[in-house]
Amino acid sequence: MSTLKVVPLGGAGEIGKNCTVVEQGDDLIVVDVGLSFPHEEHYGVDIVVPDFTYLLENREKIRGIFLTHAHEDHVGALSFLLPHLKVPLVCTQFTAAMVRSKLEERMHIKDVEFKIVNPGDKVDAGQLSVEFVRVTHSIPETCALAVRTEHGVVFFTADFKFDFSPVDGKQTDMTRLSEIGEEGVVLLMSDSTNVDRPGWGPSESIVVEGLRRVVQQAPGRVLVTMFSSNIHRMQQVFDVARETGRKVTSTGRRMETTIDMCRRLEYLRLPHDLYIRIDDVGKYAANEIIVLTTGSQGEPMAALSQMSRKEYSRLQVAEGDTIVYSARPIPGNEGAIMRVVNRLYKMGANVVLDSDSPIHASGHAYQEEIKLMVNLLKPFYIAPVHGEPRHQHVYNELAQQMGWPEHRVFTLSNGDCLCMDDEKAWIDQPVVWGEVLIDQHGNVPVNDEVLGQRAALAHDGVIVVSLALDVKAGDIVGKPEAQVRGFSGPEEAVFDALDDLCGALAKLLPNEVRDVDKVRVLAAETVRKTVSRRCQQRPVVISVVCEI
Amino acid sequence: MSTLKVVPLGGAGEIGKNCTVVEQGDDLIVVDVGLSFPHEEHYGVDIVVPDFTYLLENREKIRGIFLTHAHEDHVGALSFLLPHLKVPLVCTQFTAAMVRSKLEERMHIKDVEFKIVNPGDKVDAGQLSVEFVRVTHSIPETCALAVRTEHGVVFFTADFKFDFSPVDGKQTDMTRLSEIGEEGVVLLMSDSTNVDRPGWGPSESIVVEGLRRVVQQAPGRVLVTMFSSNIHRMQQVFDVARETGRKVTSTGRRMETTIDMCRRLEYLRLPHDLYIRIDDVGKYAANEIIVLTTGSQGEPMAALSQMSRKEYSRLQVAEGDTIVYSARPIPGNEGAIMRVVNRLYKMGANVVLDSDSPIHASGHAYQEEIKLMVNLLKPFYIAPVHGEPRHQHVYNELAQQMGWPEHRVFTLSNGDCLCMDDEKAWIDQPVVWGEVLIDQHGNVPVNDEVLGQRAALAHDGVIVVSLALDVKAGDIVGKPEAQVRGFSGPEEAVFDALDDLCGALAKLLPNEVRDVDKVRVLAAETVRKTVSRRCQQRPVVISVVCEI
Repeated sequence: MSTLKVVPLGGAGEIGKNCTVVEQGDDLIVVDVGLSFPHEEHYGVDIVVPDFTYLLENREKIRGIFLTHAHEDHVGALSFLLPHLKVPLVCTQFTAAMVRSKLEERMHIKDVEFKIVNPGDKVDAGQLSVEFVRVTHSIPETCALAVRTEHGVVFFTADFKFDFSPVDGKQTDMTRLSEIGEEGVVLLMSDSTNVDRPGWGPSESIVVEGLRRVVQQAPGRVLVTMFSSNIHRMQQVFDVARETGRKVTSTGRRMETTIDMCRRLEYLRLPHDLYIRIDDVGKYAANEIIVLTTGSQGEPMAALSQMSRKEYSRLQVAEGDTIVYSARPIPGNEGAIMRVVNRLYKMGANVVLDSDSPIHASGHAYQEEIKLMVNLLKPFYIAPVHGEPRHQHVYNELAQQMGWPEHRVFTLSNGDCLCMDDEKAWIDQPVVWGEVLIDQHGNVPVNDEVLGQRAALAHDGVIVVSLALDVKAGDIVGKPEAQVRGFSGPEEAVFDALDDLCGALAKLLPNEVRDVDKVRVLAAETVRKTVSRRCQQRPVVISVVCEI
Repeated sequence: MSTLKVVPLGGAGEIGKNCTVVEQGDDLIVVDVGLSFPHEEHYGVDIVVPDFTYLLENREKIRGIFLTHAHEDHVGALSFLLPHLKVPLVCTQFTAAMVRSKLEERMHIKDVEFKIVNPGDKVDAGQLSVEFVRVTHSIPETCALAVRTEHGVVFFTADFKFDFSPVDGKQTDMTRLSEIGEEGVVLLMSDSTNVDRPGWGPSESIVVEGLRRVVQQAPGRVLVTMFSSNIHRMQQVFDVARETGRKVTSTGRRMETTIDMCRRLEYLRLPHDLYIRIDDVGKYAANEIIVLTTGSQGEPMAALSQMSRKEYSRLQVAEGDTIVYSARPIPGNEGAIMRVVNRLYKMGANVVLDSDSPIHASGHAYQEEIKLMVNLLKPFYIAPVHGEPRHQHVYNELAQQMGWPEHRVFTLSNGDCLCMDDEKAWIDQPVVWGEVLIDQHGNVPVNDEVLGQRAALAHDGVIVVSLALDVKAGDIVGKPEAQVRGFSGPEEAVFDALDDLCGALAKLLPNEVRDVDKVRVLAAETVRKTVSRRCQQRPVVISVVCEI
């Protein structure tokens, strides 16, 4: 029997850009094709996607891309892969609808083949087969995947929690989980995002109580900010609005298109007149309005952030408004969120970040839920993914407490090739992997060199020094000049640099002057050195040499 | 009687750069001269200090600078003010020692006059007088200030908590607080940092239990990261080391100098042989070592951050090490901290960010402690400071719950001139105020224009376009050329831009060509427009025109 390979191209040792290969013999499937968001040192980068080299090199073997659910970190990179790879996408109806709507922004989707499945369905993929198993999460129709191989089942939990009172009434299929556990799981690829939280996470449905209380006490309009994919949360806002006699509107393009799509496909259930256009808000009293808005992570261009800067023309935050943050900050976003929150307070609004009754519930399993999943599936090997090294570390400790010996728990990094045969498992040489940094306009990826240059430009700015050469005579013509942008050192440092440059040029012999490249390097080096000595700054220096 | 003015130049509506003026008639005192740290949009900025224009314009009236305690956000901007202003610094011995050590890095301090006081002392300042009242906080000898004016006492709480079992045994002077309350407090300037935390904060002394447990369970070295000014916390680490038979060393320049100073002045009490040099670490087994280190906020150049990147030559993190974060993340630093933490885990270390027994306690009063302070002092007016707008908002609600009517609680912004006479209080026209952005080398401050240029450079890089003009003939010589840095758009966008530029130049009449400035602007504009149209990027474009 051939060796089974499981290779995370993204999502191992990080939360984001989930993308994993399962490969046996001539058959290969891809589980999820997600993106991640840049951190603050990723200057000018909007999206990070996995390096797809391994998929493109093995394109003949790929039997399908299987999607667990429609969150950006699981499907957001499809538009960067599909133009180069024609394979079917296999997913539920809701996931397909969300993916179509996102793909349409970036590519022609008529060439994309969708295979729509229901939870419980099995799909063949060469010698492999994939079963979709319903789990609960913060977006509808999330499915774990049981991938059947010659060596047993490789089980992807997807993002999951055990929500015993889900908003849409559709629970995790525990019967199938335990049957698959009996059948024999060779490897569990497990969500580990909340592994550091002890106990059980709260059900999504308790959020309605917190929202109800906030809305009942709010003297004026209520703005609720959340992820635009959180359909269950939206449903609860609509329910509270109906109870409290308020109308709902929305701001932010993604929020609006998602609501439209979910109403059309009946993933949101609401009376026709509950949802109003934003232009009609003025027809109602302030305490008759709830606004759903993007911006829960402090993203500078999101609707709520623009409102906080008084730059959003369609809606202005006013005294008496209540703004509810119904989303947990992604680590690193706290500073940006708090800047928005403080501006909202200064406008006279009240901001609810936290409440005695919860206004947010995580979509990911806490410790006891993870243990339940492991107990149902009884995997031989475990690999915690969808977590940073700190989460993987805690998961490994948890697995050992549950009796899994250390050699049966793998801490995978992106690119690692986890191999299994009937006797053992081992990590082989990594495949080609990496992160590809992309701006919102989809230009060529930002490489490390460009990123390094941007960091230098951001820190100390740029100095452009120009001079003219009479190549025939081997003479410098006139005096060098300088232009600066983003440079905060003293003017004198630049003047001194130009003086030093004149001195250095004067020492050149005529035939050295004729070597334009040499003069260009000399000019940049001289200016760099003098400026650094004078004011300890290291601006980027670009020299321009005109030949006359 | 003359109007009493209280003017925050920093620290109102923010946590950082505390600096407040109290002024009556011809007398003016300054309370604290602090700095704040930049956020991620402050490119290339290391320190933010208040605009001191108001102090310099009123230099004749200033009777002294009174310092509550030695934290950077209360004393860190002194080195930017004192070279321009010769006034005495009035503070306790410990604060003076810390300030001296910091000032020495930036200026000659023999010209700086210190007046050393003990808690309980009163100091005259013209018609004003200032009494130092001991409070507990996370640094020794913190004092609240009772400023006596013609209209009653203006009371600055400083940063405080009610710690009834402080590590150094020195409690808040509650007797004086209640006596001053009886005397009559017209205005309370109150710490509001933790006003959103209900109940009572834990005593600093309970941290020893958490530290002890972590150290006892650690199989190898323990690295504890904390603020280098947290002397009480250090003392507890030394105490735990002695108990558990470990030696202590330190890394990070500021940590080392502070420990030296505190041992010399006996603010730290430890046996001579407990503290060892870092070069001697190799003489001990791993489980005999504790390392105190800087880097609790993920600062890129701090010792712990360098260790996580394997760039710190004096100490390497190894498998089996335990790293304890004994400090709360400042909002906005979470992302940087987690990147360090994940790298430490990847090196095989264990990281303790949180624990069943506390490894950190805040230095700031929780809600009930704030209420106790207010009840002891019974101020007529209250102004919550040392808090962002969100903290001020919560404090105002708290004050109203305690019976203070809305018009007796002021939400101050920096620059606001809070005026009082015997009948009323009002906010007058703001004075000159602002934030001054400084790089670590103390160059001229970074202004908004430079910051805007750096943001643009960081996002899309720079294109330098150069061309040569024959001014006499009114001709363009040769072809325009371009150099790029940090630009990630396609090369073709630049080629197209140069083509368009050639086209635009060809249309110029000879006398238009002779207008060099016009050509320069045309070149930059043309390149900017074409690049933006071709790839939606907006790099900074700098044009160089050589005249021949």
